[in-house]
Amino acid sequence: MKIVDIRQISVPLEGAVSNAVVSFAEHDVSLVAVITDVIRAGKPVVGYGFNSIGRFAQSGILRDRLIPRLLSADPASLLGAQGFDCEAVARTALRNEKPGGHGDRAAALGALELAFWDLNAKLADEPAYATIGRAFGRTPSDKAAVYAAGGYYYPEDGLDRLKAELEGYIAAGFDAFKIKIGGASLADDMKRIQAALQACGTGARLAVDANGRFDFDTAMAYGREIEPLGLRWYEEIGDPLDYALNAKISANYAGAIATGENLFSTADVRNLLNFAGMRPGKDIFQMDAGLSYGLTEFGRIIALMEAHGFDRAASYPHGGHLINLHIVTGMNLGGCEAYPTVFQPFGGYSPQCEIGGGFIRPADHPGFGLEAKPNLKPHLDKISA
Amino acid sequence: MKIVDIRQISVPLEGAVSNAVVSFAEHDVSLVAVITDVIRAGKPVVGYGFNSIGRFAQSGILRDRLIPRLLSADPASLLGAQGFDCEAVARTALRNEKPGGHGDRAAALGALELAFWDLNAKLADEPAYATIGRAFGRTPSDKAAVYAAGGYYYPEDGLDRLKAELEGYIAAGFDAFKIKIGGASLADDMKRIQAALQACGTGARLAVDANGRFDFDTAMAYGREIEPLGLRWYEEIGDPLDYALNAKISANYAGAIATGENLFSTADVRNLLNFAGMRPGKDIFQMDAGLSYGLTEFGRIIALMEAHGFDRAASYPHGGHLINLHIVTGMNLGGCEAYPTVFQPFGGYSPQCEIGGGFIRPADHPGFGLEAKPNLKPHLDKISA
Repeated sequence: MKIVDIRQISVPLEGAVSNAVVSFAEHDVSLVAVITDVIRAGKPVVGYGFNSIGRFAQSGILRDRLIPRLLSADPASLLGAQGFDCEAVARTALRNEKPGGHGDRAAALGALELAFWDLNAKLADEPAYATIGRAFGRTPSDKAAVYAAGGYYYPEDGLDRLKAELEGYIAAGFDAFKIKIGGASLADDMKRIQAALQACGTGARLAVDANGRFDFDTAMAYGREIEPLGLRWYEEIGDPLDYALNAKISANYAGAIATGENLFSTADVRNLLNFAGMRPGKDIFQMDAGLSYGLTEFGRIIALMEAHGFDRAASYPHGGHLINLHIVTGMNLGGCEAYPTVFQPFGGYSPQCEIGGGFIRPADHPGFGLEAKPNLKPHLDKISA
Repeated sequence: MKIVDIRQISVPLEGAVSNAVVSFAEHDVSLVAVITDVIRAGKPVVGYGFNSIGRFAQSGILRDRLIPRLLSADPASLLGAQGFDCEAVARTALRNEKPGGHGDRAAALGALELAFWDLNAKLADEPAYATIGRAFGRTPSDKAAVYAAGGYYYPEDGLDRLKAELEGYIAAGFDAFKIKIGGASLADDMKRIQAALQACGTGARLAVDANGRFDFDTAMAYGREIEPLGLRWYEEIGDPLDYALNAKISANYAGAIATGENLFSTADVRNLLNFAGMRPGKDIFQMDAGLSYGLTEFGRIIALMEAHGFDRAASYPHGGHLINLHIVTGMNLGGCEAYPTVFQPFGGYSPQCEIGGGFIRPADHPGFGLEAKPNLKPHLDKISA
């Protein structure tokens, strides 16, 4: 068995929403296809991966560095006991890369390495959560807690629009929600939060996300207002790398804090665990395999969290999509997010994934089942044509 | 005045040396040219920049994200009181980029933003150190301390070769040196260090560089052997992001520690300053503008170092080349490195830069004077043709 070709394309995200920091209108995603010489039903077995949502496609790094290293490697060196050895794939793709600088490179490898997990699951003719569970010594869950992440700032916005948005999520089977803050004044954001609470009933069902915008004083001005509301969590309050700031906030804000979606390596997460005042049994981690060198590195990150006294149920990966649904159920993590209206064609799940009662159940398509997502399928067909 | 075009090419590094972690044979560098509508002597004024040495060219990020944003910006929004406003250039090039993930993107912007400093200096018809000194409120130095960084592991290596290499540096006017460790056994590396000491006479003239390879036990095994030698510094001992490890080593090793060349943002350096046990008056910082979003961000980094009680003389930027010579003299930093035999065509200086007595003097060509470096000139001609 060997790789015949590795292809990648950039796919723009649809929709012009924004958070407190950026507009997503320019964002795109790298879709990778790994084509093998294994033929089933007359066609080669192909593994697909992508680098999650919210940053950028990585065509340059994939094309100039990572893919050539894999294609020039001894094919046998990339094989494991069952299918491909994803650790060997990641190590080979990073040959001669220096330590440090865990940014775009981590997303490029994320897309590439995850395609090998899809491939391994298809070779074993099973859903990816089964392959992932076996690889990490876990019994996969049959469902994952899921929350609806929305409440973005729209060009034409209003409290009624926001409330109607959340009511739509409730009708769709969600019972937990997240909205953006920090893109308006504190007074206006509190009106948004109150409108959202009218829809979802209790603070325990509502998280808020500042997308790394606040300094300590702003963080605490919001913190004092929201602390009595008992919100589900207060997300990415300051700069994602400012561990001293996070520690100071966690010492002064009694509610749960969530962060980690902009940390892309074990080395960065080690610093978060050592220095940022994260509290076991309370705070939430949101590292995302697709942005963090893929699932091999993500497994190291979860192990490090546990070694620091955190339960893996505190992991709610950033990136509401099929790949992370399989990772969350396969590794028994805390839950998934979903973006019911945005970040297409990557955001969200296939029609066969049932949502209800605050949970989502993965379907049993082989691999991540990306082929079953109707608006993603044309992109898969294009890249593997 | 406006930008007519921004071009970039990838230029491979020459030479097959390696350190403890990587071979440099695959490494390349992004060379950027910013072409203006200002005509002097019948030709447009062009600013050149590159993203230092030791990692990779960033064609994809430059072409897909940073350059299109600058070319689509209102030209007036990029102008300052004198020439281009480099802070506006950097901010515009990063539009809609999220916080965190300071890796390849930082090198891409480094090459691009530094080209605007070259351009501003040429527009003012002065060497870049003068422009830089004025921008940062400093009186430029007329020379910089310089040390010869070499002692790499070669395919055909030996103690005589290493000793002869350092004797060659002494003959060339250097009086301080750095060699690699960690690519051989401790016993063999100690033989290399002793051979180097025979050439340079005293430990105060010799630094050693582990390139981020060591865990604590290995770090201290080396540390116990080299501490009595009074070496100039012990460089990048463990993973560049493992601040807890660095703090533990600095509490147990009495000599100077140097690090920072693989930290690419103010946010990362803040954590180094907060958590890594770096000692004012003793330890050395090696952040490199070309890998760190350019000189605007590098200026913030130096200011943060000073706010934490470190003297700017503790800054010895990674990357021995003309751009950093102008930055070091313009900002009154501690000194430069030089790679007399490797990393061509970017490494080293132009023939007009005098080296002697352990110092190097920048020449007075306009800008960084990259045109005066004979083996770099053909690449500049190619990109701006």
